[in-house]
Parts: sequence; C-alpha cells; structure tokens
Amino acid sequence: MVDPKRGSLLALTMLVLQKYGGSSVADLERIRACADRCVATANANGGLIVVVSAMKGETNRLIAMANALVQGASEDASGDPGQGDYVTAARRSAEHDRELDQLVATGEKVSAALLAMAIGDRGGRAVSLAGHQLGMHTDRSFTRAKITDISEQRIRAELAQGRVVVCAGFQGIDDRGDITTLGRGGSDTSAVALAAALRADVCEILTDVDGVYTTDPRLVPRAQKVHAMSYDEMLELASLGAKVLQIRSVAFAKKYGVRVHVRSSLHDGPGTMIVAPEEVARIRGERGTPSMEAIEVSGVALQRDEAKVTLVDVPDVPGVIAEVFGALGSGGVSVDMILQNASRNQRTDITFTVGNADLEAATEVLGRLRPGGESLTLETDRAIAKISIVGLGLRSHAEVAARVFSVLATENINVQMVSNSELKMSVVVQERYGELALRSLHSAFGLDAPT
Amino acid sequence: MVDPKRGSLLALTMLVLQKYGGSSVADLERIRACADRCVATANANGGLIVVVSAMKGETNRLIAMANALVQGASEDASGDPGQGDYVTAARRSAEHDRELDQLVATGEKVSAALLAMAIGDRGGRAVSLAGHQLGMHTDRSFTRAKITDISEQRIRAELAQGRVVVCAGFQGIDDRGDITTLGRGGSDTSAVALAAALRADVCEILTDVDGVYTTDPRLVPRAQKVHAMSYDEMLELASLGAKVLQIRSVAFAKKYGVRVHVRSSLHDGPGTMIVAPEEVARIRGERGTPSMEAIEVSGVALQRDEAKVTLVDVPDVPGVIAEVFGALGSGGVSVDMILQNASRNQRTDITFTVGNADLEAATEVLGRLRPGGESLTLETDRAIAKISIVGLGLRSHAEVAARVFSVLATENINVQMVSNSELKMSVVVQERYGELALRSLHSAFGLDAPT
Repeated sequence: MVDPKRGSLLALTMLVLQKYGGSSVADLERIRACADRCVATANANGGLIVVVSAMKGETNRLIAMANALVQGASEDASGDPGQGDYVTAARRSAEHDRELDQLVATGEKVSAALLAMAIGDRGGRAVSLAGHQLGMHTDRSFTRAKITDISEQRIRAELAQGRVVVCAGFQGIDDRGDITTLGRGGSDTSAVALAAALRADVCEILTDVDGVYTTDPRLVPRAQKVHAMSYDEMLELASLGAKVLQIRSVAFAKKYGVRVHVRSSLHDGPGTMIVAPEEVARIRGERGTPSMEAIEVSGVALQRDEAKVTLVDVPDVPGVIAEVFGALGSGGVSVDMILQNASRNQRTDITFTVGNADLEAATEVLGRLRPGGESLTLETDRAIAKISIVGLGLRSHAEVAARVFSVLATENINVQMVSNSELKMSVVVQERYGELALRSLHSAFGLDAPT
Repeated sequence: MVDPKRGSLLALTMLVLQKYGGSSVADLERIRACADRCVATANANGGLIVVVSAMKGETNRLIAMANALVQGASEDASGDPGQGDYVTAARRSAEHDRELDQLVATGEKVSAALLAMAIGDRGGRAVSLAGHQLGMHTDRSFTRAKITDISEQRIRAELAQGRVVVCAGFQGIDDRGDITTLGRGGSDTSAVALAAALRADVCEILTDVDGVYTTDPRLVPRAQKVHAMSYDEMLELASLGAKVLQIRSVAFAKKYGVRVHVRSSLHDGPGTMIVAPEEVARIRGERGTPSMEAIEVSGVALQRDEAKVTLVDVPDVPGVIAEVFGALGSGGVSVDMILQNASRNQRTDITFTVGNADLEAATEVLGRLRPGGESLTLETDRAIAKISIVGLGLRSHAEVAARVFSVLATENINVQMVSNSELKMSVVVQERYGELALRSLHSAFGLDAPT
C-alpha cells in the first residue's frame, strides 16, 4: 500500500486532520463553506482527514424524540447539552443506551455524507466513513464508550486514492458491530484519536472562536489569543470551564503527542497550538514572546459557580476529615478546593468549595454526620468567586504568589482561600470583587493586549 | 446455536416478520402503537422480526438537503417520491450516489432505534439492527442495489435471546462495508428477503389499507378486499399501479415462496394473503369463494395515464416495425400495448400506447425516422383509458373475452385496442367511458360486494 505521507504517486507532503463542530456544519451554506476550506486544505497539503459533528441541534432533536418515547421521561431535552451525560437517568438500561447510540450516531453520519457531497460538488474528491467503516473500535460502554483500537486500513486506502476522508465523529463500534458513542463532545476525541492513529502532522479543531484566550474576552476586553500552550495548561484551563476543547481529547493528545491547532472556521489566521512544552517554548520564541526567564502565564480564569462551606470548630483527630470527605464522595458531591486551618486545642476549621448545584446535597450529607459524636456547625457562602492563574512551572516561581497577593491587596480585595499546584494558582474572593481581581491579575501578569 | 423456530428453551411456534411503512412510524404516537403490536405479536407467536421504513417525510427531507447542496440542482425535492428513481440525474456520479446512500439510510436507522426503545418501554425486549449489522449484503449499485446474500447469524442469535429484532429497511452493505440502498420502496424488498432468508412463516406488510382490493374503492364503492391472490396476479396488479407492494418485492416473494400478508396496521383483521396458486385455492375455498370452475378474477384496474399513438399507413415490410420500436427504446420511451392491423397492399397501421409523460419524446423520435425512405404519419390521442382484468388462468377461458366485449357493447362503449396474456386482459376505450367500463366489468365478473 502507498503510504499517504510518503506517497510515491501523490507526493503528499503533510497529512492534516480537521475537525468541524456542529455550528460549522449547522446548515447547507456553512457545509459549503467547510467544503471550500477542505478543498483548499487538501490542495495545499496533499492528505486530509476530516471529522464532523452532527449539524447543530440535530443531536438534541434525536434525544428529545428518545426521551419523549419513553414513558415518564420529560419531553424537554433542554438543560445544558454541552455538559456531562445526556441520558435520562430514570430510564437507563443497557438496552436503552444501546438504542440511544444507534439513534444519535445518525446525526454525524448525515453531516459527514453531506460534507462529502459538497466537496465533490466543489471539484474535490471525498468519501464519508461512518463508525463501522472508519475502524474506530471501542468497548461496550454505550453513551460513554472508550476507544480501544483504530484500524487505519480503510482510511489509508482512501487517502492513497487521493480522497478527502470525511469521518463521522463521536461514534465507534464495539466488537459485535454495535454502534457506540463517546459521550458529549466526543467528536474532539474522535479527531485527536484519529490524528494519533494516522500520525497526522496536525489536528486542527475548527471552531467559532479564534483560539484559546488569556481569559474570557467578554470579561476582559484586552484578553489576547495565546499562540501556544502545553497540554497540561490546556487541561487546567478546560477544567476551569474553557469550552473550546473537551478535556478528554486534550488528555488523549498529550498521551499520544498529537499537535492540536485550535483555530477559527471563519478565517485562515493561526489560532492556538496545543503542543508539548518544548514546542511551546519554540513557538513563543518565534512569535516574540518574552524571554525564557519570564513567568509563563497562559491564562487567567474566573469561575462563579462554586460555593464555600466551612465546618466550624471540628475535632482535629484522625478520621474526622476522612469521614467528612468520604461522606461527601458517597453522596455524589465533588469537592474542589480544600483548606484546613492550623489546629488550636485539637479543634480546627475546615473550608472547602463545591459546585453551586451540589451545595444543597453537601449540607444534607453533612447534617447527618456525627464525627467524634458531635454534630457539625456549617457556614455556607454562595457569594464567592474563584480566580485561577494557569501557566507552565508556576509553582517554582515563588514570586507568583507574592505578586498575586500584592495585586489583590492593592485593590483591597481580601483573599479567602488559596491553593496552588504545578500549573495553577487559585484564590477565592468575595463574588463582587471577582471581575476586578480577574482584570487586575490579567494585567499584572502581562497578558493585556497592547493598546 | 438454538434454532429459533425449534428453540429448545423458548419453544417458539411461529416466526413472524412484520414490515411497518413510513406512515406507520410517522410520529412518536404511531411508533408507540407499533411497539404495542410488536409486543402482542411476539407474545402470541414467539419469534418476531420487524422491518421499518423511515419516518414519513424523513427520506425526502434528507434528499432535499442533498439536492440543495449540489449546485444547479433544484431545491425542490417534490415530484412523486413514491415512483422510480430519486436521484437528481444531472449530478449523478458514483461518488455522489454513494454519499446519498450513506445519507438516506440514516432515516431507517432512526426509526428502528426508536421502535426498539418503545418496545423496551412497553415491557418487551428488542434490539435494532442497521444495514451493516443485519447481514444484508448487496452489490455496489448505489441507490438501486441488488441483494446478493443475507448472513442470518446475528438475527438468529438475537431471536434466540428472546429479542424482537428491529431491522432498518431499505439498506444493506457492499463487500467494502459501504452502505447501499435498495431503491424507493426498498423496505418491502428488505422484508421479503429477510423473511426468505430466515424462513419466516409469514411476512406481514402492515400498511394504511386493509389489503388488496378488487379495484380502487374510490372509483367503485362496492370493491371488495381479496382474501388471497397468487404472486403473479399481484405482479400484474402492481404493474397496473396498485401501490400496496413494490413489484420487486413480489417477484422476490414468488421466487422464494414467501407467504406475504398485506394487512392494516390499524386493526387486527385479516388482509390479503399473497401466496402460491395452490394456497390461493385453499384459502378461497375456506372462505366460501365460488366453485373451482368459476372464472377466478382477482381484480380490475383503470389506468388513465397512457396515450395512444397510431402510425398510419406504414410499409408492411420486414425491418420497419423493428426500426420504429428500436428507435423508441433507444429514446428511453417504454411502450405498453402494441397492435398491428392486418396488412392491405403491403401497407398497415400500427397502434401502441405509451405513458403520457413519454408522448412528447415518442413523437420527436418518430418524427426523425424515415422507415423505408418515407416519413411517418402520426395520430396521437391522450383521451384514452385502459381497463385491465387480472386473474389466474384468464387466457384459458375464452368466455372472458366474450363477456368483456358483451358488457362493453351493452354500455355502448367502443373498444379501441385489446391485448391479453395468461393473467390479464386489457382494453383501451375513450377516456370518458373509463369509469363506466370499470364499474360494469367489476360487477359482471362477480366482484361487487353483497349489498
């Protein structure tokens, strides 16, 4: 077989993978625009694999039908479809989940076939491949399947024929040939996994933003696009709510060293490269980012969806803290920051944050506990904001913490909680100061765009 | 493996195949009704395979998107979607057809998954199978594929597990794993082919009519449902425009001896059995139809969509008639009845009928011909009606023709053309007498329902 990266006949120089999200294929006009871009990319590079999501709204339409069919389920498929699970928990069964996957996977098949037709109409040559054709093998965890293996033969053969290979994202097959899906946002994972298996030179995530920004431009108008960022930084930013890439796909990219390029589907300008740290340094150097010694902060994020819980004056004896967090875990409450004050007379305060949506469950769980035989005194506060600074090697720079505290002190903002890790430093402040803290820190760490 | 028809564990007594058309699964309410019927059928018989079409309107929605995508094609996907080809001829290419099949086959996948979910919700157990899962192998003629082979293992295995197997109709896969479709109405063919491969006891075609009628009840209120009919009679009626079953599926049923039961999806009453002639006789006997010696007429049909062309006074020499019909065939005109008058002085008249839609093409083709060196004199007439009588062994009954002519003479209806075959006798009359001729013949052959 001809190796498409070295193809003797076609002299392919680069193998590019492009992923188009649901809004990029939302209607026929946008599908035509994608087709134009595919043709141009294929002409410029030689080899092109495309991964598409379902047309915007289609997945929800299909899920709404499934939910409405099943007695007792809500006819309303709203909620935030971008987050977490999309299965109506009440009716969950292995059979139902299997059918749900057979159902929703059709959305990506439709957009893949339409895009392939449009490329043909634009003078290109293309073939669409659905889950069972593109060799995406998964386990049998319907609605949240894990990729086990990718058979690349069919894709390689189509590339060798000079075709753009348009893959239906989000789906695979298990070893019985049943359709599985990779969970919400799974098309990102499809894209990165295919880029890894086919050893693509780059995995382009084409989206409706220009790239990854130093912070949310709606909050900080002087936010800048980041030229390059390491996988770990992107993981931290994604966990802080940056929606540009699904977390799992970033972890996958890191594991297999896939170079990811997040860029606009509307223009050709460069976006943000998500790559290994060495390449981050190289790209930043090329683009004139400050010297190696400067603190490399990639972004600052503000989260307002957490609440703070303080357990006042609890016995500081072994087992109490384990009982508290064990009970929260069993109760399905996930805890973010945890802070324990120094002990006085074997009593201490414990403070932690949870998602606002989990606060009620947390207080209920804790209300039932009697650690060391006494009930707990709780203080809760929803009016908090968390600001996080993300960058390579933050922890090694003691000055980062100093600068954070100094900036916030200058603004008279009291810091309620602090945590830091290799890549991230987070502070909790009163909610009303959240945006001010964000803007001040964004500026202090040199992230503001030149005026 | 457990043979589901003899299953030691499940003691299945009958294996039934049911096919639900697009209007039976048009919305969620109707899908629930189908699910109820599936559960009842499975409980009553043991083994059930279901074949579903796409939800009514879905195939056209998908085709309209495909047509709109392709430059120059009409955005209008109307016309009669029930007839013939659905591909925009202008843009036809193997690649486009392949993508069209990948696209439109999703419609049946959606309804199959929804129906399987609904059966589960109704307390049954079901699994949906799409083209690549149900073992429907075809050739590579996209949009009009021919079935080459059915691998029954997966379906048998699911049946042995006690599941209702819901198959996406209309689709198969070729030997590369590409999706193919069987052409418009292909779900009927899927149903009959699966019934043949799995040796189902009966293939039920559930539809929005009660069965096959002796003629169109809108024209003849006293039309009756036919209890049983042979494959050949059904083929003749289908070719005359009866839309209850796709012709190809009837030919398939005949070839493999599949017992087909056309019945209502709205109630449980018996419909029309389409079976071998021996069984027709048995069923008619059971239901008190007249003696074996009676002329067995199954139906009478009226067609008003043909036109008559007469070539006046052409040379009756070898080669002329061949040149005429050869040219029509090359011009894509399909000819129905042909009648040549006795020759006088080596000159003759030739009369034939063509579909109204082909009349213009026919006159154009014939206008260019110079058979024997002379141009042709044409007379055309769109104001004709064709009435056809269909029944087993018609030709052997000389009295049939006699009775037809006598009935029409009584009504003062002039017969313009006649043709007959083993199973069918057709007459052409002036269009204005068409309905009168239909009613008179329906009555004269004993088909009127008792008052």
